[in-house]
Amino acid sequence: MILYSYWRSTTSYRVRAALNLKGVPYETRAVDLVAGDQTTPDYLALNPGGGVPALRLDDGTILTQSLAIIDYLDATFPEPPMLSGDTTTRAGQLAVALSVATDIHPVNNLRVIGQLKARFNASPDDAKAWMQHWMAEGFTATEALLPDTPAPFSFGDAPTLPDLCITAQAYNAHRWGLDLAPFPKIARVESACLANPAIAAAAPERQPDAAPPP
Amino acid sequence: MILYSYWRSTTSYRVRAALNLKGVPYETRAVDLVAGDQTTPDYLALNPGGGVPALRLDDGTILTQSLAIIDYLDATFPEPPMLSGDTTTRAGQLAVALSVATDIHPVNNLRVIGQLKARFNASPDDAKAWMQHWMAEGFTATEALLPDTPAPFSFGDAPTLPDLCITAQAYNAHRWGLDLAPFPKIARVESACLANPAIAAAAPERQPDAAPPP
Repeated sequence: MILYSYWRSTTSYRVRAALNLKGVPYETRAVDLVAGDQTTPDYLALNPGGGVPALRLDDGTILTQSLAIIDYLDATFPEPPMLSGDTTTRAGQLAVALSVATDIHPVNNLRVIGQLKARFNASPDDAKAWMQHWMAEGFTATEALLPDTPAPFSFGDAPTLPDLCITAQAYNAHRWGLDLAPFPKIARVESACLANPAIAAAAPERQPDAAPPP
Repeated sequence: MILYSYWRSTTSYRVRAALNLKGVPYETRAVDLVAGDQTTPDYLALNPGGGVPALRLDDGTILTQSLAIIDYLDATFPEPPMLSGDTTTRAGQLAVALSVATDIHPVNNLRVIGQLKARFNASPDDAKAWMQHWMAEGFTATEALLPDTPAPFSFGDAPTLPDLCITAQAYNAHRWGLDLAPFPKIARVESACLANPAIAAAAPERQPDAAPPP
């Protein structure tokens, strides 16, 4: 399998973590979102959404959308499962994952910041305030949706889909200077995930296309 | 079951259509997003995300996030299925649904327009241009992800999850004046869905809280 990925993309981070947890080998093809690699005709023919990640299966099929890719991986490589077999627990896990994937991430990506600059002449400080606003509002909801549990991960002793979404978004929160202290469950989940070698290996700074540390 | 819903909410529309297709009876509780009903302490205790839809099960459990609710309904009331049993087809269906649910809808909702007004003094024309930009860009990707098929619905002769997401978003496109002519597959899917009595009954103007026509 070939994963089209950008090191800082939080949606790529989710899929890298799922692949690593399941022990599925894959090659990385870096797509530099800052350089505009995602807007080339070749890449758009592969993924018309012009985003990352995309996963090329061995038969040439291209899968897009991180949550669709992880759903496919979970059906194809069931262990360890990314969602519970109990329908109500599963609904709670999906709600947490989607609260990050629909209510936080989409309003916080490079495309949106680009439009704020182009249409409203947004300054770097405006962009930072925008990012922090949606992450703080979204994390407040995510925190409230998380169960009260002494377990390290969001829904128990093993990482599942919501943990991957939270940890990737927490990376972005640190990048944009949002303090996670008001969100103790989210901070606990992130710590547990970063202590897991498979998830830690999916972190942005561990990727082949990562920029060298400043 | 009780569905907390707002007539014009496209995510509520998705869930209403799934409930109707499966023949699951439910009561509607209207949450007026324009009046701010979603920000009351009572409603936030029920859904900390402060959005609609939310589904109250008969045992009192509250489910949130439209795609998590539909996943639960599909597990609990399997007929008709909202996703294929074939993993690759299912991944394609989810990618289309998520292209609407993550790349179009979240940047086009009332919360975002409110922030554009508050932070950047956006005018009504600015808001309309913003809505149309993301819907046109997103529908271009969605259209490219849809299979070439003579079938009426996106993935065959029966409606599934991507059809519900597309039809609800098409309602919003009409509301904001976006022409669907450049998106013939999306227009075909919408026509097929609106000719389906269960989906048509989920349309905004058919809801008990709908404003009277102008």
